Amino acid sequence: MEDKEQKKDSALHISKGKSMDSNINKNFKRKKRKKRSLQDFVEGIQAGNLVVLSQAITLIESKQAKHQELAQQIIEKCLPESGRSLRIGLTGTPGVGKSTFIDSFGQVLLKEDRRLAVLAIDPSSQVTKGSILGDKTRMETLSVHPNVFIRPSAAGESLGGVARKTRESIILCEAAGFDTIIVETVGVGQSEVAVHSMVDFFLLLLLPNSGDELQGIKRGVMEMADLIAINKADGENIPAAKLAKKQCRNGLHLFPPKPSNWIATAEICSALEQQGLTKVWQHILSYQNQTSINGYFQQHRQEQAQYWLEESIGEQLKNLFFKHPKIKDKFDETKDRVVAGTLSPFKAGELLMQLFLNGL
Amino acid sequence: MEDKEQKKDSALHISKGKSMDSNINKNFKRKKRKKRSLQDFVEGIQAGNLVVLSQAITLIESKQAKHQELAQQIIEKCLPESGRSLRIGLTGTPGVGKSTFIDSFGQVLLKEDRRLAVLAIDPSSQVTKGSILGDKTRMETLSVHPNVFIRPSAAGESLGGVARKTRESIILCEAAGFDTIIVETVGVGQSEVAVHSMVDFFLLLLLPNSGDELQGIKRGVMEMADLIAINKADGENIPAAKLAKKQCRNGLHLFPPKPSNWIATAEICSALEQQGLTKVWQHILSYQNQTSINGYFQQHRQEQAQYWLEESIGEQLKNLFFKHPKIKDKFDETKDRVVAGTLSPFKAGELLMQLFLNGL
Repeated sequence: MEDKEQKKDSALHISKGKSMDSNINKNFKRKKRKKRSLQDFVEGIQAGNLVVLSQAITLIESKQAKHQELAQQIIEKCLPESGRSLRIGLTGTPGVGKSTFIDSFGQVLLKEDRRLAVLAIDPSSQVTKGSILGDKTRMETLSVHPNVFIRPSAAGESLGGVARKTRESIILCEAAGFDTIIVETVGVGQSEVAVHSMVDFFLLLLLPNSGDELQGIKRGVMEMADLIAINKADGENIPAAKLAKKQCRNGLHLFPPKPSNWIATAEICSALEQQGLTKVWQHILSYQNQTSINGYFQQHRQEQAQYWLEESIGEQLKNLFFKHPKIKDKFDETKDRVVAGTLSPFKAGELLMQLFLNGL
Repeated sequence: MEDKEQKKDSALHISKGKSMDSNINKNFKRKKRKKRSLQDFVEGIQAGNLVVLSQAITLIESKQAKHQELAQQIIEKCLPESGRSLRIGLTGTPGVGKSTFIDSFGQVLLKEDRRLAVLAIDPSSQVTKGSILGDKTRMETLSVHPNVFIRPSAAGESLGGVARKTRESIILCEAAGFDTIIVETVGVGQSEVAVHSMVDFFLLLLLPNSGDELQGIKRGVMEMADLIAINKADGENIPAAKLAKKQCRNGLHLFPPKPSNWIATAEICSALEQQGLTKVWQHILSYQNQTSINGYFQQHRQEQAQYWLEESIGEQLKNLFFKHPKIKDKFDETKDRVVAGTLSPFKAGELLMQLFLNGL
């Protein structure tokens, strides 16, 4: 029991770190880090060097133009070596135990000699300073394993920005030899759509006390799930977890078949007691097997690539428009007239477009 | 029984029309229609003249620039007189009996002295030449009533185009004094989203034989529904309809509360036997009452106006981009490289944007 308590804490445990030694030599200068060339980066990543991988992702996240340029070159060079992993999306409301789940589920993967990269999409981290994966020590067991790479979400970014950076990071992780990628997101808002559009398999974690409502999980999120895992199915929670499983299966049943032809289902598990995780993994492997045979796996990835191309164009067009000085000047006033009902939205759109085009 | 059979036919009855008289004077020239001025149109519409209203909608649907310009002027003039109706979206798969439903439901509205306009969004009509509202005679009883205006969907249009035209037609119908607008769409694809974004209340029609799946209705559509009406609940269908009602209520129960705080439910009805329709209407009135009190009704309309402004800008930007000769030239080739995985979607997006900007 003692042991269990400790394990329970571990997911939320934050390493205290070392206090600053006041006797430290004030004249100590950090040795200037050697600037890596494009080739250094690409070779380092492809050799599986995690320090180089990590630095490359920092370039992806950088707002500096020269970093961005180098990052794009690295990505293009790594692209031919990417795509060979199984990409798993993971979501669930705060408190469902995502970090503990990844920590325990990762052990299952490591036993199968998989190499695991964990990335996060958390646009809310600009407010909360990183509520998920904010501290690697939340995954204590995994974070010290040489076959595991954990990277928290870039902070201070829009969803579009963080999603793009995460998708680019996946490419680098794959080029570095990671064969399993988990992209984690918190179960609120639009971030699931972004995650869903970059993974092969979508896993939804729920709590046992589902009750009447699906814990505020949006219907759209449930629709995306390839598997629902009721976590914390341990001790006195087990009956509730079994009931929630049944309710989820009934709920999933109400909906039409997926384009993958995969039939989504629900299982119970306990990340804390490391129960039911192998079953979750088996479902994921079955999915990969089934959709590889019916061709959906590859088709889905191609659709995702096209989706991101369109998203990327759409985002750039919007930036171009909304950052235009004449639009910045007039947009709010025009919008107010539309909302007040004194100008039709379409007429307003045309007026703004004219302003925009005249100003180009 | 005789009578019932006839009624059943009526919804699908197509008026045979009059055959051409071969003795007709070949030299007969149709009197040239007097060109209406902007003022004629606005005054005609505001006086409730259905011929003028109909001609104005034809201008909205026209692809000619001068028609479009006049249409926009009419809309802007009518805008202050719009917004005072209750806008109801209606969807359901083909065969669920939407036309018969509107025909019978309209009688309930007419008894309450409402004035009813029925519009349709049917982007598929470019293929099927108008599968919904294609022939006004499908609503035999309604179509001859002076307080009713029925307008089929404009054919040969993209969803974005037909949605915009429908939204603009709503404005004119409201200015013409219609206090109840039904926007009908067929229950497949994205058209429900478009309808949902322009109505106050969203009504989903289902068949009694719901079985395990919700008849191929997408989860997202069920999420939008403020009320599910199980139609054709007559004769031997009644037990199945009652079961479907129960299943739907359970299904709706699984989901979180709506931003309107309205609790969606399911009812049975028979448009054929004119049963249960008053109950449907009472739900709609309760919704209007409840959301007017809690402020959602007005807030929702403002959000819709803003949504359409953004959609309109997005659509124009995309047109500008994709119709650009340099993009037309290069897009497919670039997309193919992205789909093949030899070019990252984001890099591709940037390359295309550069082409676009250089060519402006």
